[in-house]
Amino acid sequence: MGAPPPRGKFITLEGGEGVGKSTQIRLLGEALRARGLDVVETREPGGTEGAEAIRALLLGGAADRWNPQAEALLFAAARADHVARVIRPALDRGAWVLCDRFIDSNRAYQAGASGLADDDIMAAHRIGSGGLMPDRTLLLTLPLDVAAERAMQRDAGRADRFGARGRAFHEAVNAAFMAQAAQEPARIRIIDATDGAAIVSARIQTEIEDLLP
Amino acid sequence: MGAPPPRGKFITLEGGEGVGKSTQIRLLGEALRARGLDVVETREPGGTEGAEAIRALLLGGAADRWNPQAEALLFAAARADHVARVIRPALDRGAWVLCDRFIDSNRAYQAGASGLADDDIMAAHRIGSGGLMPDRTLLLTLPLDVAAERAMQRDAGRADRFGARGRAFHEAVNAAFMAQAAQEPARIRIIDATDGAAIVSARIQTEIEDLLP
Repeated sequence: MGAPPPRGKFITLEGGEGVGKSTQIRLLGEALRARGLDVVETREPGGTEGAEAIRALLLGGAADRWNPQAEALLFAAARADHVARVIRPALDRGAWVLCDRFIDSNRAYQAGASGLADDDIMAAHRIGSGGLMPDRTLLLTLPLDVAAERAMQRDAGRADRFGARGRAFHEAVNAAFMAQAAQEPARIRIIDATDGAAIVSARIQTEIEDLLP
Repeated sequence: MGAPPPRGKFITLEGGEGVGKSTQIRLLGEALRARGLDVVETREPGGTEGAEAIRALLLGGAADRWNPQAEALLFAAARADHVARVIRPALDRGAWVLCDRFIDSNRAYQAGASGLADDDIMAAHRIGSGGLMPDRTLLLTLPLDVAAERAMQRDAGRADRFGARGRAFHEAVNAAFMAQAAQEPARIRIIDATDGAAIVSARIQTEIEDLLP
């Protein structure tokens, strides 16, 4: 019986639709596993059976299916399940957790772009998940037109409730993400995602180097 | 164009499984309609298409499907939809809204019996529904054995996630309801529900008489 393993690191990737988050999660996972680390790749909303059921409610249906209040609480409920069953246990056993979207997406989409108070988003996060925050957040940025084109090709016309919203909404989301990064420069690192995937991955690895054992 | 109608009254019925809430909602609705009032009967969790979808997540599956945090946030999300789409519009047009369970059930089940902080339940309610409170709450009480027998006959062995919990849980729920009633005697009226439905209905009508136009 040795000492318990050091707690793992919690890394989130953020940004609008089509900036390449899922590709970059995969590449970062490969790079970390090559260093011998235990890595868990997951996503929000979702990541557990219960949270994926909530994800289906959140992403399906008409754009006005939920008001921003109900939406924020559903995200917080899905996250509570995900944090309790997947993220905290993985961190506790020493694994690195790479998560595609987390609390900063709620702050950008439900507060920044939909008018809810940021304090309310954070209060729901505290109630549900004890206010767990990432150790590092990579904010992938792309010009809106490029991101929209990539998202359209990926979704083949089947955009979800958020992807289907107009340009002004997505501009507000991007502006909210940039404002968050300006407020928390130590945690949130802005990553230019216009180059090829391997170059972007190298940028991301540089930004998490100080967290490596 | 006259003045807007006076706001309707918001009445909730509370209590454990099997105390006769749905029967009493129906009888109170009949009595109020006989006085010429516009009456909306509804229930929680549920009451809208979105909230009924959340209800299915909340009541189905194994008893440990959700932790108390996720559960409380799901209830608050369902309520946000219900309040915004049904309850507030009805009250604004002057209707009386009779609701089978509301915030006091969350306080009794998730805080009183499952260990969440009452402040967290109320914070989620404020985020989702602006903290809307009933004008009057009728708390129906029955000895636990009588209520369990009635609930068993009604459910015919198909109890939901809450009904399926053990006696200690339901005792804690009842104790939490009684503690709430002691704290807010003006709003929450205790109704002995051991007698026949017509007698219980008469007791309820007496307790809301002062709210009638």
